[in-house]
Amino acid sequence: MTSNAPSPAQPGKPGLQVSPLAVPFPVIAPVGGMEMAAGRAGFYKHERPDLLVMHFPEGASCAGVFTRHGVGSAPVDWCKAQLAASGGAGVRTLVVNAGCANSFTGKAGDEAARWTAEIASSQFGGAERDVMLASTGVIGVLLDASKIEAVFPVIAEQMTSDGWTEAARAIMTTDTFPKGVFAETEIAGTKVRLAGIAKGSGMIAPDMATMLAFFATDANIAPAALQAMLDEAVVDTFNSVTVDGDRSTNDTCLVFATGASGAARIETADDAHLAAFREAFRAAMLDLAQQLVRDGEGATKFAKITVNGAKDKASARKIARTIAESPLVKTALAGEDANWGRIVMAVGRADEPVAREKISVRFGNLWAARDGAVSRDYDEAAMSAYMKNAELEIGVDVGVGEATAVIWTCDLTKRYVEINGDYRS
Amino acid sequence: MTSNAPSPAQPGKPGLQVSPLAVPFPVIAPVGGMEMAAGRAGFYKHERPDLLVMHFPEGASCAGVFTRHGVGSAPVDWCKAQLAASGGAGVRTLVVNAGCANSFTGKAGDEAARWTAEIASSQFGGAERDVMLASTGVIGVLLDASKIEAVFPVIAEQMTSDGWTEAARAIMTTDTFPKGVFAETEIAGTKVRLAGIAKGSGMIAPDMATMLAFFATDANIAPAALQAMLDEAVVDTFNSVTVDGDRSTNDTCLVFATGASGAARIETADDAHLAAFREAFRAAMLDLAQQLVRDGEGATKFAKITVNGAKDKASARKIARTIAESPLVKTALAGEDANWGRIVMAVGRADEPVAREKISVRFGNLWAARDGAVSRDYDEAAMSAYMKNAELEIGVDVGVGEATAVIWTCDLTKRYVEINGDYRS
Repeated sequence: MTSNAPSPAQPGKPGLQVSPLAVPFPVIAPVGGMEMAAGRAGFYKHERPDLLVMHFPEGASCAGVFTRHGVGSAPVDWCKAQLAASGGAGVRTLVVNAGCANSFTGKAGDEAARWTAEIASSQFGGAERDVMLASTGVIGVLLDASKIEAVFPVIAEQMTSDGWTEAARAIMTTDTFPKGVFAETEIAGTKVRLAGIAKGSGMIAPDMATMLAFFATDANIAPAALQAMLDEAVVDTFNSVTVDGDRSTNDTCLVFATGASGAARIETADDAHLAAFREAFRAAMLDLAQQLVRDGEGATKFAKITVNGAKDKASARKIARTIAESPLVKTALAGEDANWGRIVMAVGRADEPVAREKISVRFGNLWAARDGAVSRDYDEAAMSAYMKNAELEIGVDVGVGEATAVIWTCDLTKRYVEINGDYRS
Repeated sequence: MTSNAPSPAQPGKPGLQVSPLAVPFPVIAPVGGMEMAAGRAGFYKHERPDLLVMHFPEGASCAGVFTRHGVGSAPVDWCKAQLAASGGAGVRTLVVNAGCANSFTGKAGDEAARWTAEIASSQFGGAERDVMLASTGVIGVLLDASKIEAVFPVIAEQMTSDGWTEAARAIMTTDTFPKGVFAETEIAGTKVRLAGIAKGSGMIAPDMATMLAFFATDANIAPAALQAMLDEAVVDTFNSVTVDGDRSTNDTCLVFATGASGAARIETADDAHLAAFREAFRAAMLDLAQQLVRDGEGATKFAKITVNGAKDKASARKIARTIAESPLVKTALAGEDANWGRIVMAVGRADEPVAREKISVRFGNLWAARDGAVSRDYDEAAMSAYMKNAELEIGVDVGVGEATAVIWTCDLTKRYVEINGDYRS
């Protein structure tokens, strides 16, 4: 992936400073068969794009994963229902708005979602069921679809294959930088492209911010194969990052395959020709997932938490997540404090099998604790120096088995409190 | 319970300001049969008491509940083993130190605990097994019992029945005010007294701070009855408060009954004569538990979260706790923002049965959401005014059943991050 200059402008909220952990938006080459454009529907008071439309050719495939939140939003319900009915075949249009989550809005919210699909199908072709929807913003505010209807004709005239940066900006809320990824790989010898954008800044339920991610490829992959690949890849990517442990009502990750590359059609996820693409897709998802953490609200540290020696994978994941979401661990990272006692505390409160007398904790390559007590070669000066890095690795061995898990997270700073203490004001 | 003036001095860390939610230390009358004194063993660099000894008469009863943390400390292991062996009969001495948790200290830590019991039994009488121990402070630091041994003779000369305030101060870490409770009640017509102290400021695992609570009564209650009453009372008191969701390796709650009141001996917890005492004990535990929340690190808001309409009690508790521990809910409280969308978000991520179209949310008596959407009489001005109170009530109905739970918590402020970002430095 190549990069151009960083993109500091911030449409979500004026005055937010770009995260110190930001990475530049990549150069994204056109993905055959699809077009997009962004516009301003006016869900925000200040001037910014807040509506994105992507358009796909007939015969495109679609797959999606959604929040498992008990109070899913109207657009999430809509997408799940349409994908269940169509099996992911025939999707033509994606409409995404920022500034209004259309979540917890009752039957009126469902109707606003349906109406958005209706006007999108009128404007861009295809049936209502061929429209995917995603919304992000404050919960409990009903979507005013007339704002969307008013700007559709403008957007329709601006559709382009080269609008990825603008697209990434249009879906931002509290994000401080636009997030994109691009890869070229091959299927059965034919070159294919994969592009993606994401937004989210307080993962898992970023504020009322929501994690949204959209991928498009010109590969020719059947919906079932696309879905299986997505389900597999999401576990160690988007489901392995956390900012504050809060989860959104609107989380949505969609992938579209246009088939325009001319590459061989892939019918099943276990097709050997899919190997390179699958790996590129997983890497792209991980890249975007990590960008969410890099834009964690108020974050100044990017931390990789690795747990080894757990009973099984689920146990390793739970321990790693408990460490990553502990306010005491996160504030210690913010304070550049190698407070391994808090790591041990978090390990213990995960309520998973651990061998107390075998627990070891390292920061980078520096062992803080070994076999259930402070490390003999513990070096406070070296440890303090290490903690000044913006990117940190914490390793924990819990001494009961062979399973491993990795979670990425960020620190908890005063800035997080500041951002979230006055979000609606 | 009567009160004297607030006690602003703070032995835990110089310079900490007293919580705005603090309550005064009560006047505690002597509890017959027991004495106590505090001294300075020197676990802190600055001048402050850090060692507490309580002494009980022959025939006293003891019961305890402890952290369920997977990495329990040496003193917790010690108490559990001795209580299991003795059944809670014959306990003579309690030794509590602040400034060192003696947790995650391996075999050396176990030996330091045993040695502390040995020197306590030499100084104060009884066998090693009759000594209860509790420690609080930084994890991973081995307890230097020679410091305790050196100060025991001084403490032994100062034993008094009137040392509760000093006792409460000696066990503080990041606490900003000493926490005590006192009640008089009766058993079978004879007046009995109940006193208690607690420490903790970042419940459940306050920093490396730990929740400790100790109660003494002159009632005559058999160990089994005392244990049953404690087990019952802890659920809706100490186990229903949370500051940051982190749990300590050292949490300990012990209750001692001296029998010195001359009241009738109670053998079983279902004895009808115990009714008034049981209620007084529950109220005293709730009082101290709420004081922990009032001293939550950086807290400026004290919030009662009530969940109604849940499938069962466990489900109601999990939903209430998820709301109470959500960083986004807690930062909204700090920002005096009636952000009911975040309440809904937290309800949904508890992964418990809820009826989305029936969820209602209120702040005080002001309904923010009713039956799955924003309330028709939602009044932003009234809501904003309500949120300026230091004590808040949040009510949620999830619309699937009859079960209820209450959790008390506090807000998440920049001060919390500040306190915990430089704890070790």
